[in-house]
Amino acid sequence: MDMSSIFGKEFTVSTWGESHGKAIGAVIDGCPAGVPLCAEDIQKFLDRRRPGQNAMVTPRQEADRVDILSGVFDGKTTGTPISLIIFNEDQRSHDYSDMTQWYRPGHADLTYDLKYGFRDYRGGGRSSARETAARVAAGAIARKILETRYGTEIIAWVSSVGAEESHVDLNKVTYDAIEASPVRCPDSEASVRFEKAISDVKDNHDSIGAVVSLLVRRPPASIGEPVFDRVEALLAQAMLSLPACKGFEIGLGFKASQMRGSEHNDEIYCENGVYRTRTNNAGGTLGGITNGEDIFCRMPFKPTATIAIEQKTAGRDGTNGILKAKGRHDPCVGLRAPVIVESMAALVLTDLMLRQKRFDS
Amino acid sequence: MDMSSIFGKEFTVSTWGESHGKAIGAVIDGCPAGVPLCAEDIQKFLDRRRPGQNAMVTPRQEADRVDILSGVFDGKTTGTPISLIIFNEDQRSHDYSDMTQWYRPGHADLTYDLKYGFRDYRGGGRSSARETAARVAAGAIARKILETRYGTEIIAWVSSVGAEESHVDLNKVTYDAIEASPVRCPDSEASVRFEKAISDVKDNHDSIGAVVSLLVRRPPASIGEPVFDRVEALLAQAMLSLPACKGFEIGLGFKASQMRGSEHNDEIYCENGVYRTRTNNAGGTLGGITNGEDIFCRMPFKPTATIAIEQKTAGRDGTNGILKAKGRHDPCVGLRAPVIVESMAALVLTDLMLRQKRFDS
Amino acid sequence: MDMSSIFGKEFTVSTWGESHGKAIGAVIDGCPAGVPLCAEDIQKFLDRRRPGQNAMVTPRQEADRVDILSGVFDGKTTGTPISLIIFNEDQRSHDYSDMTQWYRPGHADLTYDLKYGFRDYRGGGRSSARETAARVAAGAIARKILETRYGTEIIAWVSSVGAEESHVDLNKVTYDAIEASPVRCPDSEASVRFEKAISDVKDNHDSIGAVVSLLVRRPPASIGEPVFDRVEALLAQAMLSLPACKGFEIGLGFKASQMRGSEHNDEIYCENGVYRTRTNNAGGTLGGITNGEDIFCRMPFKPTATIAIEQKTAGRDGTNGILKAKGRHDPCVGLRAPVIVESMAALVLTDLMLRQKRFDS
Amino acid sequence: MDMSSIFGKEFTVSTWGESHGKAIGAVIDGCPAGVPLCAEDIQKFLDRRRPGQNAMVTPRQEADRVDILSGVFDGKTTGTPISLIIFNEDQRSHDYSDMTQWYRPGHADLTYDLKYGFRDYRGGGRSSARETAARVAAGAIARKILETRYGTEIIAWVSSVGAEESHVDLNKVTYDAIEASPVRCPDSEASVRFEKAISDVKDNHDSIGAVVSLLVRRPPASIGEPVFDRVEALLAQAMLSLPACKGFEIGLGFKASQMRGSEHNDEIYCENGVYRTRTNNAGGTLGGITNGEDIFCRMPFKPTATIAIEQKTAGRDGTNGILKAKGRHDPCVGLRAPVIVESMAALVLTDLMLRQKRFDS
Repeated sequence: MDMSSIFGKEFTVSTWGESHGKAIGAVIDGCPAGVPLCAEDIQKFLDRRRPGQNAMVTPRQEADRVDILSGVFDGKTTGTPISLIIFNEDQRSHDYSDMTQWYRPGHADLTYDLKYGFRDYRGGGRSSARETAARVAAGAIARKILETRYGTEIIAWVSSVGAEESHVDLNKVTYDAIEASPVRCPDSEASVRFEKAISDVKDNHDSIGAVVSLLVRRPPASIGEPVFDRVEALLAQAMLSLPACKGFEIGLGFKASQMRGSEHNDEIYCENGVYRTRTNNAGGTLGGITNGEDIFCRMPFKPTATIAIEQKTAGRDGTNGILKAKGRHDPCVGLRAPVIVESMAALVLTDLMLRQKRFDS
Repeated sequence: MDMSSIFGKEFTVSTWGESHGKAIGAVIDGCPAGVPLCAEDIQKFLDRRRPGQNAMVTPRQEADRVDILSGVFDGKTTGTPISLIIFNEDQRSHDYSDMTQWYRPGHADLTYDLKYGFRDYRGGGRSSARETAARVAAGAIARKILETRYGTEIIAWVSSVGAEESHVDLNKVTYDAIEASPVRCPDSEASVRFEKAISDVKDNHDSIGAVVSLLVRRPPASIGEPVFDRVEALLAQAMLSLPACKGFEIGLGFKASQMRGSEHNDEIYCENGVYRTRTNNAGGTLGGITNGEDIFCRMPFKPTATIAIEQKTAGRDGTNGILKAKGRHDPCVGLRAPVIVESMAALVLTDLMLRQKRFDS
Repeated sequence: MDMSSIFGKEFTVSTWGESHGKAIGAVIDGCPAGVPLCAEDIQKFLDRRRPGQNAMVTPRQEADRVDILSGVFDGKTTGTPISLIIFNEDQRSHDYSDMTQWYRPGHADLTYDLKYGFRDYRGGGRSSARETAARVAAGAIARKILETRYGTEIIAWVSSVGAEESHVDLNKVTYDAIEASPVRCPDSEASVRFEKAISDVKDNHDSIGAVVSLLVRRPPASIGEPVFDRVEALLAQAMLSLPACKGFEIGLGFKASQMRGSEHNDEIYCENGVYRTRTNNAGGTLGGITNGEDIFCRMPFKPTATIAIEQKTAGRDGTNGILKAKGRHDPCVGLRAPVIVESMAALVLTDLMLRQKRFDS
Repeated sequence: MDMSSIFGKEFTVSTWGESHGKAIGAVIDGCPAGVPLCAEDIQKFLDRRRPGQNAMVTPRQEADRVDILSGVFDGKTTGTPISLIIFNEDQRSHDYSDMTQWYRPGHADLTYDLKYGFRDYRGGGRSSARETAARVAAGAIARKILETRYGTEIIAWVSSVGAEESHVDLNKVTYDAIEASPVRCPDSEASVRFEKAISDVKDNHDSIGAVVSLLVRRPPASIGEPVFDRVEALLAQAMLSLPACKGFEIGLGFKASQMRGSEHNDEIYCENGVYRTRTNNAGGTLGGITNGEDIFCRMPFKPTATIAIEQKTAGRDGTNGILKAKGRHDPCVGLRAPVIVESMAALVLTDLMLRQKRFDS
């Protein structure tokens, strides 16, 4: 079946498991030996992802406890494949009962059905957001590697919800400020406006979109491969592989298209043998290779397709009718995205880092 | 050396050749047998890409004549690898003479040098825009396949230059209208404003950015692979692999993040057994799989890094100084992008199309 | 770490788990939807592989119960990744205690240590025979697919032990005749001689080699890819990836090199629109593609490297000394090979079968 | 189309070109920068392969002059893809005229036709021996790398023809002794018997098989990846991908299966910090990783399928009849194999060598 579940070339992640199946998991291959790793290193990121932390996200309870079945000995990775498993806790099927007949607008149901001949309506099957838990788990290992070798810090936050925007100083934003906000926005004033916007749509049984920003401090330098595997190309692929993501920009992105070269170019200088740039409009990449400056990206997430408002649609039998979804849904899936975005960035950067050969130059 | 030059999984394109070397080319593997193909099918797209057509782009003359060395017999593809070769015509090295010492801000020089230990200063080596000629050639074959099987039409145009915008009706835009404009903008009124903006920066020895829009009519339906190889993820990777591209959005992109689900969802209806959507905010993709509706994307291109204005920079020896580039440069590289953008889209869609297995479902 | 654990291109198998870790398993990706599958389909092959069935193999007890964690719903595959897990039952570490210092001649210890900087002495780590249990489990799924679509039968047996040979009629050999023999040789007379040869070396604390023959009846026709992925090339790679395997031949193999073309060529004839050959010296492959005739191969396995006789060797510290291994070892690892050989053949043929594209010809 | 023409993972070779097309060639990607390389380095191996050197091989004249189109600057590789091109000189199509209707027994015609829907009868298309010229060219570059870094020597010779055998001392065999023989056998006495055997079959319009031996002195140590990409597995795949090859064995191969562990194990000793083995029954590999000792392999080649004796066969239209091939054919294709076998070994070892990561252990 043409549905590849393997990500990466050197640090490969193979995910498995359906949203309402027995368990989900991942096999990570290519992790170097000697990296300190334990289940808690991974659990803390899964916990950040868990819904039900507040009224902003779906109240479904998911315990999401991860277990490491191989690849670690005496608290360190052995270099052999690491198998992670997360047993599913919350599987109430009947929430989606009214969807067997009708295709949900904006959702993968229809295209999935036409392509594969069936539809796993129970929560979205392989395309559901829960599958991303496996990616977060694998991403935690990638983060450990980057942190250990480079002191890399990867943080993401919600920078806009609907038409509401925020202001964040990239030099000062911290992980703590992000976590302090129930909507993961480090601008406390904007955070309040975001919460209100989300409550409003929730009361209306509707949903709303959001933009997520990603910042990578102290990334490995000199990674990325010109021609096809530029670091920004692989980051874009990783982000656009997330459900509901509709775009990507790096550095100044679309704003860069409005500038002149004299304004946009980052001046290079050398200090104590280290090359730096005075500004960082490029967002940490030049010619597809990281230059050591912070990597900065923004991704728009569309509003959740599943809403409780009545919608006209077509059914499996070819007739046209009405769908009103019941059950519990996220009014703003973008709120869940930051941890997953961080994980995907970690996977891409680690994969590129590990592609470096012994025989370069 | 970790610099992969192979693109695609089923319809693979392997490019070779340096900008100032003897020739450039591509080997295309995975093309089905029986597709009508001749050199002119490819030449016409290379001609569209050629600079020197007007005062808007670099006056370097490049004949770019392509020759097909294998894979075609009696006017049809045989199913065996197709080797394309394009001999370089214009190779005046001395234009870049002042760059041996100084790193060009915004350019790949520095990162390339630090990673690989040397720098091909003659025109940017593998990361230069001329390498993309090989991709355009390969893309022409992909287009032939899509056109033959689905009647697919792929067109791209410049939709903004600097702060200047345009208005284009997606249902009416034509290839002819794009080609009629010296700046490849089908909105004739905006076209004039674009020309002026570019002339202005050219007079100032500066450069300016642009946004390119891509529209695919009658794409193959049901292609794309959930989880990691979603069609939008692969399109994003393909576009962000182009020099100077700083972002990607599909459907309403960043605008979608500002909307509500009730506004953004495209209503589904079924007519004569065919599923359609009344609007197309999604941009032709749902759950990572194409639904048959038009695919629409936008990509921002930063202003050319190489400008003739003096810039402070650092040199290979670690000192800081001044660089003033001579030679001939594009004031707006975005103008060259449409043909390449179309080619990359063709490569991605054809690769996904050919991944479909005999044993699906 | 450069140690790829992923096998196959379309039907991919990713194995994980150390011999003395918590569990071992495999993730199978690319299995088509709709294939009937349950744990028992897999368990029966694991049971055949289990040592302790008789005095001929190692008495270590391994329960090897497999569990299917994903990819199956209502007794059929869903087309999503299938995760298999087998918990380790028998893990007595201390059996290998005398090996921490000394490298075992003929074993992977030394090369593994020099390459990866450590040695998992507990049973051979990733290179141990137990890792192959994961391959047998994955192979069971592949067999199901081939059986369901083509009625393919895959059987392997021990055709020689040391200098003792057997005589087997390829047109009449059956699975039952193989299983009836404690040494998996369908020639009952030779079976007795094999048992004696093995008992003799066992009494002497030594080991002995064997040759395993493989026969595939009713294989899928027209699979295999000329140039690099010929069916015989992939079968050879699969077999030589098994511990202790030192060769491969297909059809008449080395005997073919002693013949004339007039003798070796298989005459082609057509009957009722089906092309057959009167003889099958080729072993079911022509130009790297299967022709539908039975596939026949032979693989030599070297004698177990780990023996209880004293051997001179070198140690981790660079000194030279004596090693006498204790613990329980197989006098003839070749006896375990038939089930694994069948599994590898199933994996290769299924992978090639699933590579067939919708758009061939 | 499922016919992969790309070989290798890090040092990739992509071949193109039909036997009777305009040219053949290869694109080599992954070659490190700084390797000294010129066309003559490659030409000398192509010349060794060229038929017409004596009466033993086909008199077709092939000039086979190679040209390097990219990837080399100032006599050294740049690290970018290397494009090689060889124009075809001898293309007399009419030699194969009687084959349009009848399938040639033992040849790829039939399977190729049934799989791809057509048959390139002109010399065997992609499956012909001339395609291997591209592999020899690519192999020459691989050899340069191994020679430069390790002083590796790779030689192959014909060790038996039909039932005639030879005796060769692995410690003393030289390239010159091989080249001095018109049948590439370094045992001058056996050489005479080989020539006679070949003349005899040639007079009878028949063909005969041969065995080719391969020896690699001073190979890189510690290359090869346990589990699936063992060095012997990749060598086996490479050799079995050659037309007419029906088997592979490494070290003592099938003989090892007849021995006891006490006889077969190579004693390890350490001298001046270097680990060696006193014997080398293993053939240079342990646990799938090279240990630095010589690698020794043997491959049987079947007799040429195309002979001038009448054969019964079936035709494209499903009828049965007689085929008598005209034209010029090799009585013993095995004679051409040594250079190609050496090239394939070079490609495999170089690919494995370059997979070594910066971050191992």
